[in-house]
Amino acid sequence: MAHSLDFFFYYGSTYTYLTVMRIADVAAAAGVDVRWRPFNVREIMIEMDNIPFRTKPIKARYMWRDLARRAARYGIPFVEPPAYPVDPEGLANRVGVVAAEQGWCPDYTRASYRAWFLENKPLGEPEHLAEILVGLGKDPEEIVSLADSGGVRARYDAETDEARRLGIFGSPTFVAGDEIFWGDDRLEDALEWVTRPS
Amino acid sequence: MAHSLDFFFYYGSTYTYLTVMRIADVAAAAGVDVRWRPFNVREIMIEMDNIPFRTKPIKARYMWRDLARRAARYGIPFVEPPAYPVDPEGLANRVGVVAAEQGWCPDYTRASYRAWFLENKPLGEPEHLAEILVGLGKDPEEIVSLADSGGVRARYDAETDEARRLGIFGSPTFVAGDEIFWGDDRLEDALEWVTRPS
Repeated sequence: MAHSLDFFFYYGSTYTYLTVMRIADVAAAAGVDVRWRPFNVREIMIEMDNIPFRTKPIKARYMWRDLARRAARYGIPFVEPPAYPVDPEGLANRVGVVAAEQGWCPDYTRASYRAWFLENKPLGEPEHLAEILVGLGKDPEEIVSLADSGGVRARYDAETDEARRLGIFGSPTFVAGDEIFWGDDRLEDALEWVTRPS
Repeated sequence: MAHSLDFFFYYGSTYTYLTVMRIADVAAAAGVDVRWRPFNVREIMIEMDNIPFRTKPIKARYMWRDLARRAARYGIPFVEPPAYPVDPEGLANRVGVVAAEQGWCPDYTRASYRAWFLENKPLGEPEHLAEILVGLGKDPEEIVSLADSGGVRARYDAETDEARRLGIFGSPTFVAGDEIFWGDDRLEDALEWVTRPS
């Protein structure tokens, strides 16, 4: 494809569910190739003292309601607010880094978000992760061992550094050159940006 | 009109510029009547320790870039980031309460935002306010005196209490019954909600 977009995201971000469930279709329809790039937004948000929900129950309640309405609008299933926060050790994220390197990131990510949002199986818990990996034809022990390795941890940190350099502070963020678009609700803006006539 | 939407907003909110410039047209096109309701979002945000930009330069820089892009998308003029924050005494907001009571809130609000964003005349400064009021055929001394009165201050506080009761935490917020929609980018969702077949 002539156009491409980088999709920086964090396993554990709530609104990212919407993007994970729809980006493959809308990007394909726009003729845009997507590069899936897991990074540690939690680390960046803590650095910035950017805590949108954990200490703000009114805003958190709104977020879930808004997310449910947006899911309905897109025809994406939504049952009820799932467990939150999740992935305390970053394991789901580091497996995402492995998946991105090996070329099965979209399938892994959709399966992970479905399990978290629709089946009450929070991200990052080893037994849920194993189930997802087996479903994808992977060996859980091998993949988790890779995800725990120094090389993959370094890669995850490098992606987080790249996000920091780009001025990214939330998930999902779409990147086209130096231009960043934050939020599932900016996906269409980002696709229009990369496909605009030059 | 059969349908109506309450538009809670704060003079001094940045993204509210987009809504102020476009809500009359898009609501009219949808057949929806809009009730303009100034309230003190700053007070609510401070209560919630919800400080999105003042202490977060990276997020603030993104906000201005996103706002400029969104303005271009809507065909709304945008020159450069204006003075921020503004209206330290809440004067522009309290005049907004007077304007809402007297039926000239949309014109006053558009003139105020145009002056702030396009003419380098920050909201709430008495000389800029006087110019705007004269332009609307009002007597600045009379209106400012009203805006400083106990009755109007009480009305502003009551609107803020109503916003608090509804779970509002940002500007702009659109309200339809108990349903709230936060952000200029949710205006279309709100219009769809109030005009949906029942």
